[in-house]
Amino acid sequence: MSLTHAAEDPRVVRSKTAVLETTRELLREFGFGGVTVDAVTARSGVAKTTIYRHWPDSNALLLDAFTFEKPIVDFDETDDLRADLRRGVRRLVADLSGDSWGPLFPAMMEASERDHDFRRLSRAFIDERRRPLLVRLTRAAKSRQLSADTDVELLASAIVGPIFYRRFVSRQAMAKVFPDQVVDLALRGVGYDG
Amino acid sequence: MSLTHAAEDPRVVRSKTAVLETTRELLREFGFGGVTVDAVTARSGVAKTTIYRHWPDSNALLLDAFTFEKPIVDFDETDDLRADLRRGVRRLVADLSGDSWGPLFPAMMEASERDHDFRRLSRAFIDERRRPLLVRLTRAAKSRQLSADTDVELLASAIVGPIFYRRFVSRQAMAKVFPDQVVDLALRGVGYDG
Repeated sequence: MSLTHAAEDPRVVRSKTAVLETTRELLREFGFGGVTVDAVTARSGVAKTTIYRHWPDSNALLLDAFTFEKPIVDFDETDDLRADLRRGVRRLVADLSGDSWGPLFPAMMEASERDHDFRRLSRAFIDERRRPLLVRLTRAAKSRQLSADTDVELLASAIVGPIFYRRFVSRQAMAKVFPDQVVDLALRGVGYDG
Repeated sequence: MSLTHAAEDPRVVRSKTAVLETTRELLREFGFGGVTVDAVTARSGVAKTTIYRHWPDSNALLLDAFTFEKPIVDFDETDDLRADLRRGVRRLVADLSGDSWGPLFPAMMEASERDHDFRRLSRAFIDERRRPLLVRLTRAAKSRQLSADTDVELLASAIVGPIFYRRFVSRQAMAKVFPDQVVDLALRGVGYDG
């Protein structure tokens, strides 16, 4: 399933972990502006030279801190498209509602708005995370679970857009059934009757 | 249409405007962490005592800076629900793509995540801005343009969620036809065939 990397020196693993955890703490407390290599060094005790050995700049470090817990939401691939999508969107909601990824995400959006380099990096981050859903929908269109001319990018936005909107914009509570409702509305919206 | 206020002293208007414009500049450059009353005073030349006379704290000032250009998107109310929604969502896209509101919005989301007081204020701000769409959809359900049991909150999230998602999360370009496509998918999703 995954490439095998040569085992890293445990001391290196330990200091990298400390740096990433400190970065996430600073992000939670102070937002993007609070994360400088100096601040990470001061709190983590890891030397600046060590930090720069692993990350070329604070943007790279920030992106790594976001991906620390590998928050890629997978989409299953069974014969039941609706069930696959519902499960995937429920996972996304759980992810965004938990402690790991969700509370840091607004800092990423904010930094992307102001900083060109960070925007480029975070677009790649998001693209990677959108891919499993796009792949699932594209296969559904190829196998005629969905109509062959389905606009999968539009459908993907219709499926995850309302989730991000409620979590970060309107901040409305999401009922347990909300992911299913969103999926059902979107599927009906593209004429799926499976 | 609107309440008439007693005319304000032009000097007061001038200093309030300077404070709000400075606040917006600082937000664009530095994000939430860059807006302190000290920083606003330093750049605008308006005394701290004057600022505190108009705004109890920096959160109130920040919210006022966001609402400066009154970015409430109206929804028309004609017999053609689809056309009304398409027009409203096109306005929302134009608003979020312009210079006034969109570039500041991620700072609001970020601040809401970290600061309890700001979260409360910004929820009220967003609720006020969701209202015209909810009112339009509720009337449509009452007049049977939509089925009477339509979940208008779900439908509202399906209509605006994909717009906010593309603007602030995936940062995908929105084709001119995207607002119409989103409205059409959502309406079909709730069984509207008008």
